[in-house]
Amino acid sequence: MRILLVNGPNINMLGRRDPSLYGTTSLAEIEAAVAARASELGAEAVCFQSNHEGAIVDFLQANAAGADGVILNGGALTHYGLSLRDALVDAGLPVVEVHLSNIHARERWRRQSVTAEVARGAIAGLGWRGYLYAVDYLVEHLKESGS
Amino acid sequence: MRILLVNGPNINMLGRRDPSLYGTTSLAEIEAAVAARASELGAEAVCFQSNHEGAIVDFLQANAAGADGVILNGGALTHYGLSLRDALVDAGLPVVEVHLSNIHARERWRRQSVTAEVARGAIAGLGWRGYLYAVDYLVEHLKESGS
Amino acid sequence: MRILLVNGPNINMLGRRDPSLYGTTSLAEIEAAVAARASELGAEAVCFQSNHEGAIVDFLQANAAGADGVILNGGALTHYGLSLRDALVDAGLPVVEVHLSNIHARERWRRQSVTAEVARGAIAGLGWRGYLYAVDYLVEHLKESGS
Amino acid sequence: MRILLVNGPNINMLGRRDPSLYGTTSLAEIEAAVAARASELGAEAVCFQSNHEGAIVDFLQANAAGADGVILNGGALTHYGLSLRDALVDAGLPVVEVHLSNIHARERWRRQSVTAEVARGAIAGLGWRGYLYAVDYLVEHLKESGS
Amino acid sequence: MRILLVNGPNINMLGRRDPSLYGTTSLAEIEAAVAARASELGAEAVCFQSNHEGAIVDFLQANAAGADGVILNGGALTHYGLSLRDALVDAGLPVVEVHLSNIHARERWRRQSVTAEVARGAIAGLGWRGYLYAVDYLVEHLKESGS
Amino acid sequence: MRILLVNGPNINMLGRRDPSLYGTTSLAEIEAAVAARASELGAEAVCFQSNHEGAIVDFLQANAAGADGVILNGGALTHYGLSLRDALVDAGLPVVEVHLSNIHARERWRRQSVTAEVARGAIAGLGWRGYLYAVDYLVEHLKESGS
Amino acid sequence: MRILLVNGPNINMLGRRDPSLYGTTSLAEIEAAVAARASELGAEAVCFQSNHEGAIVDFLQANAAGADGVILNGGALTHYGLSLRDALVDAGLPVVEVHLSNIHARERWRRQSVTAEVARGAIAGLGWRGYLYAVDYLVEHLKESGS
Amino acid sequence: MRILLVNGPNINMLGRRDPSLYGTTSLAEIEAAVAARASELGAEAVCFQSNHEGAIVDFLQANAAGADGVILNGGALTHYGLSLRDALVDAGLPVVEVHLSNIHARERWRRQSVTAEVARGAIAGLGWRGYLYAVDYLVEHLKESGS
Amino acid sequence: MRILLVNGPNINMLGRRDPSLYGTTSLAEIEAAVAARASELGAEAVCFQSNHEGAIVDFLQANAAGADGVILNGGALTHYGLSLRDALVDAGLPVVEVHLSNIHARERWRRQSVTAEVARGAIAGLGWRGYLYAVDYLVEHLKESGS
Amino acid sequence: MRILLVNGPNINMLGRRDPSLYGTTSLAEIEAAVAARASELGAEAVCFQSNHEGAIVDFLQANAAGADGVILNGGALTHYGLSLRDALVDAGLPVVEVHLSNIHARERWRRQSVTAEVARGAIAGLGWRGYLYAVDYLVEHLKESGS
Amino acid sequence: MRILLVNGPNINMLGRRDPSLYGTTSLAEIEAAVAARASELGAEAVCFQSNHEGAIVDFLQANAAGADGVILNGGALTHYGLSLRDALVDAGLPVVEVHLSNIHARERWRRQSVTAEVARGAIAGLGWRGYLYAVDYLVEHLKESGS
Amino acid sequence: MRILLVNGPNINMLGRRDPSLYGTTSLAEIEAAVAARASELGAEAVCFQSNHEGAIVDFLQANAAGADGVILNGGALTHYGLSLRDALVDAGLPVVEVHLSNIHARERWRRQSVTAEVARGAIAGLGWRGYLYAVDYLVEHLKESGS
Repeated sequence: MRILLVNGPNINMLGRRDPSLYGTTSLAEIEAAVAARASELGAEAVCFQSNHEGAIVDFLQANAAGADGVILNGGALTHYGLSLRDALVDAGLPVVEVHLSNIHARERWRRQSVTAEVARGAIAGLGWRGYLYAVDYLVEHLKESGS
Repeated sequence: MRILLVNGPNINMLGRRDPSLYGTTSLAEIEAAVAARASELGAEAVCFQSNHEGAIVDFLQANAAGADGVILNGGALTHYGLSLRDALVDAGLPVVEVHLSNIHARERWRRQSVTAEVARGAIAGLGWRGYLYAVDYLVEHLKESGS
Repeated sequence: MRILLVNGPNINMLGRRDPSLYGTTSLAEIEAAVAARASELGAEAVCFQSNHEGAIVDFLQANAAGADGVILNGGALTHYGLSLRDALVDAGLPVVEVHLSNIHARERWRRQSVTAEVARGAIAGLGWRGYLYAVDYLVEHLKESGS
Repeated sequence: MRILLVNGPNINMLGRRDPSLYGTTSLAEIEAAVAARASELGAEAVCFQSNHEGAIVDFLQANAAGADGVILNGGALTHYGLSLRDALVDAGLPVVEVHLSNIHARERWRRQSVTAEVARGAIAGLGWRGYLYAVDYLVEHLKESGS
Repeated sequence: MRILLVNGPNINMLGRRDPSLYGTTSLAEIEAAVAARASELGAEAVCFQSNHEGAIVDFLQANAAGADGVILNGGALTHYGLSLRDALVDAGLPVVEVHLSNIHARERWRRQSVTAEVARGAIAGLGWRGYLYAVDYLVEHLKESGS
Repeated sequence: MRILLVNGPNINMLGRRDPSLYGTTSLAEIEAAVAARASELGAEAVCFQSNHEGAIVDFLQANAAGADGVILNGGALTHYGLSLRDALVDAGLPVVEVHLSNIHARERWRRQSVTAEVARGAIAGLGWRGYLYAVDYLVEHLKESGS
Repeated sequence: MRILLVNGPNINMLGRRDPSLYGTTSLAEIEAAVAARASELGAEAVCFQSNHEGAIVDFLQANAAGADGVILNGGALTHYGLSLRDALVDAGLPVVEVHLSNIHARERWRRQSVTAEVARGAIAGLGWRGYLYAVDYLVEHLKESGS
Repeated sequence: MRILLVNGPNINMLGRRDPSLYGTTSLAEIEAAVAARASELGAEAVCFQSNHEGAIVDFLQANAAGADGVILNGGALTHYGLSLRDALVDAGLPVVEVHLSNIHARERWRRQSVTAEVARGAIAGLGWRGYLYAVDYLVEHLKESGS
Repeated sequence: MRILLVNGPNINMLGRRDPSLYGTTSLAEIEAAVAARASELGAEAVCFQSNHEGAIVDFLQANAAGADGVILNGGALTHYGLSLRDALVDAGLPVVEVHLSNIHARERWRRQSVTAEVARGAIAGLGWRGYLYAVDYLVEHLKESGS
Repeated sequence: MRILLVNGPNINMLGRRDPSLYGTTSLAEIEAAVAARASELGAEAVCFQSNHEGAIVDFLQANAAGADGVILNGGALTHYGLSLRDALVDAGLPVVEVHLSNIHARERWRRQSVTAEVARGAIAGLGWRGYLYAVDYLVEHLKESGS
Repeated sequence: MRILLVNGPNINMLGRRDPSLYGTTSLAEIEAAVAARASELGAEAVCFQSNHEGAIVDFLQANAAGADGVILNGGALTHYGLSLRDALVDAGLPVVEVHLSNIHARERWRRQSVTAEVARGAIAGLGWRGYLYAVDYLVEHLKESGS
Repeated sequence: MRILLVNGPNINMLGRRDPSLYGTTSLAEIEAAVAARASELGAEAVCFQSNHEGAIVDFLQANAAGADGVILNGGALTHYGLSLRDALVDAGLPVVEVHLSNIHARERWRRQSVTAEVARGAIAGLGWRGYLYAVDYLVEHLKESGS
């Protein structure tokens, strides 16, 4: 069972971004935690981050075939990345959208997600732990549906 | 550590509501699972469900003082229950909002939550497991912040 | 064949509300007329009125199982009662929405019904007779569909 | 007592239009049923259908003087036929608007009626029976008001 | 110098329409007054009224070639008759739009004119005299511009 | 002369709600002050608070007949309580709407009141004294109009 | 019979403003023409122009008592001068709004007039002649209504 | 294989309409070219133009039964002709919408088509050749789907 | 303690404005009543009225330094006077906004106040007494806050 | 004569994307067909696809100088790629926009194209054949305009 | 070369307005600095400030003839001063709009400027230095264009 | 003192883009001028241009640490580049936004900047000189604030 962990623009700055919104955990730490949790659950995590929407689309196209699910924090692309959205649909995999901060309590434009509509679900505001819940859910969900 | 599990209108019908949206787990099963998980983590869950917005406000007013956090699935009140929203603010507790279905992929009016704005975070579309992640998060968060 | 007649907030004031909008027939008279018509057609009417959205949801949850159809005048809940809407969907029964006044010719907000969208049809502006047409339609419709 | 039964664009195709929305009854059958019901109630029905808004306006101008009420299914003109609306106002007769399908549960633009605002009431989603309820109402209403 | 006087849907009912809005002068009287004024000023008026947008478009197509200006009261087409608008543009003639009532002080939708945007000017609320001012203006304007 | 003092959801929490918005005076203190002022002016105050919209509607229906005016702080119902609005209209009494905080300077949705439109007037942002001004006004107004 | 001719901001620049929109006639010439026409018709014109909304309000307050009608070109105040609007209502006189250019064919914001709603009618796009038609109309209208 | 070529209001003026938008080819030339191309491909074209929405609906109702596809240039009806839209749906034929000019680069209201939503596709801005591409597509499409 | 009483455009016409909205008390009477009440409470009222937004801004700039609070009825400037709003902010004084009529029950544009957002509170619909309540509030508030 | 064939994000997945929307033809097949058709018509096609908006802008900047026209399927960039739009304008070449699916019959956001406004025309919903019609049009258009 | 420096409502309060937004430099200091810079560059600055929109319009009308450019800080008029906008257009001079604070980062209504649309450019958020850059630009621009 | 000069999509085409909007100065010339001015003022300019939003985010992440300020012309990203916006916030540097053309006088979508909201200020419409004013401002500002 292989899970793609995809982080979008500026998520590589975690730890240096405003900690009152994003916490102090770095992306490397999150990726390590996700990999560890996946491993515990008998799954594998393939991690990818880019500031380029196109590169994320490239990654999803190249890796969807061998994967079983996607954990996505699209960063600001969440709100306008329609190419990313199309790539998620084409990938045909269950997607869990994760946000570190509570996007429902920030600027108005952050409350609309163009990708959550094509995901199975979304977690926002629970910090780095949100990623782990997404791993747990995907593995359980995939086992249940016999993937 | 005491967590209030509050479910709003029609959530008591789980198991009989459209399973393609809400799954087949009943509310009693969810409440039991939440209580068990809380117990494992050294916390206590106080469960409440009502179809009356006023009764939920009453419950929050009566129980906030002795509690440390709230897990809320407001049902349709999520989208218009401004009295519930005010009660959450007054309670002064960290709130995690949970939805069984992915409200971002349903009717337009379901995409706006009047309560998520005053919560710490939200989980949608991950079925009954979403409640357990909320327990996990709240307990961890409360421990970290020394509550 | 059992039909639930559900009237929402302030409908119990009929006869005392503005007669140029609502006529002079009281709710008791309407309930009697509906029961009589249903009886003539070999059906039974169960009548309920409440000013509490939660109570109407409770009633629908408790009575949907043994019923075959719903006649609903949601009063002002028509325009914001999303919990009522969810309860109607969960009930899984054919619903006819009735309004005494012509809601299309009054304040702008009265022109949008959040419940008509999940009903089979709606009657507005035909006064107390609208309820009787709803009885007639439901009985005929249920006979046709073999309920 | 004379009632004008006016059907707008594409209503003459009933029986061939999508039966899941419009049923299988033809316009001729509806007109016959309306005429029969009117006759039973001591009234006369004058039936007219056109795909031309202008022709419907012509008809209303020519026939309003000798008539006592109007039953109108404006078809799609319901949503943009402002000339038809003005003609209804000028006619000075009570109007009942009828729709076979539940326009409140279809495309967004079908939820707004420019003619219902100048009618006495509206019936939607009750199929061909809606026309008969309109006859019943108009005759009763006209008797009551002494026309 | 030839001026086309074009009146749209329901304008033929003047005298019988609500006099508080439209006055008591009939269309025949207005046409006669326009013709007389045009004649005094050395011009000719060709009068046309229809309840059919298509017929007005036909008329404009057939008569634009030999004409020098248009006086238009589009009735309710003023607010949605985009085909009429296109026909006016194609006609290539100066247009003065006239309304008997003050459309700026009535329903919201009457405040937007889709034809005034392609006219030279508009007169509203001055009753039947508005037509005469339009004649005066067009003749003076055409003389000045050497038509 | 009898005045109904009606407070909506969460107003019973005054003194414990955010004092920068709502002050430190409790509801019991406000009710006592209102009763005292009414008494000084030769009137009687009947106090009621509920977190249930339905209960407030019930109260107004039951008490309107013997009352002369209403002082209403609808809490968050101010912004969506259309059933409350209808009950106020049905009551047929002069209403003064009171808000402790300045709702015009808070969240956008708090700036729209669905009940102020059917009241005689509104006071916002003047804290607990706003209630007393409402008493003063109602008594004076009722005296003037001979109630 | 006395008519107030009121011109708003920048109308004193006529002759120097863009002639393709406003023509080449100066305000002095327009005022002279209006006075002459009024005189011919047995009326008197009192002319006033100001770039200050407050000054126009002052003028209307000071002169309404002895006047019978108003011809108003509010300039850009047409689109936001709500104080001017209130002053027109208070004046209690029939108002004809005049615009030299066709405001319906210019920027979107110019298509909304806050003053036309409280006028009897409006003339736009007919250049300086529009003022004379306004004089004609007002005098005729005043004679008819016996002022 | 029979294709209905339907042109709406003002399209009969091609050649005389603004050539910078619509080109210089007349409707007769376009109809001849379409017929010739259809003939080459073993199909037949039935051509119809009207300025009357009702007449186009009549034509579609009368001719849909024996036809295999529709090429439609609705003229301005494209933007408000909801009766035409319903007639297209009822016809149950594949439709290709054609516009001579690029409606996406003109007035805002021209960018919304109420008929393209029920067509298979649309071509805009390619002048008279757009009609020929529509013929080619329909014939190929019909052959592929075995019509 | 000095209070500035500022009245905007057309408020000097009180007594002559529509009494069903504004009552019959003149501005002079209101100013006298405010001065008297202030005097009773140990404060001084400085009264100012102008139809010129600029003059009100001038007044506030000139008098803010020696003053302790402002009572403002901005008239129609309430809805668009952004310069007035800025002047209020610059003044740095507590402001109570007063309206004689209930602006929440009139035209839509009157429901939005650009100045209430920067005031401490607002009173609407309580007639001339609203001014006195504002005096009472300001004096009490200033005493409490030690001004 | 050189034509740039530019395909945007996810178009390289054709054949694997939802065939009910996009058909089963691969991008390589489309590029080959376009090149063949261009060659038949004496033109040359230069093909480019990227998931990166920036790369498409780079390509257009680098290749516009030697090219005569552009065929563009911007994928989801159609709806938000304003940088692509600017690059098209800067290129100064005729553009034909192509979409495989009928974007007018899908999600609301897909109905707005930010690039069609700066193109000569657009083809949507005609599948892979749409590209060939674009080649035909561009070659004919370029020949006519003497490029 | 003469430059008009025009400052609108409340700009005369600089130095006393909120320094976190506007800085601590007074208007007199800014006017002196602008005059000095203009003088260095061989130009002359004519300075004007008013809280009255009408006075600014008067000033522009009186001084445009002998001037070569305008530097404008319209204060809050920036957002609603349509008379000022018209006066700028009539003046026929190049205008540079200056704001001390970054209006793009404040209240929503401050982000729309009705005057920037008719200016050559705008500077916001650079404090008092913005005025000097405007001088530099205007002088350079005027030299280049040979004024 | 180091200033990052960042130019977005299509700005590298300056000199070849529409000179009536953008002037004739090339990007290389602008970069040279900025570098020279910075050098004169004792600062250093690091220049970067890309058509890729991701590359600009990469650049800002890599260079923010050693820099003191940013001059940004985001090109079309100004209007939708939310990832760029987040990167600017994360950089924690003062930003001056520059546009060659007056974006306030062009297409409606160009009037909204998603980045200006997180900048210190913005300059638009002053051509290449705008960049130099930005250098001047940043250097002065940085000196003042002791960077």
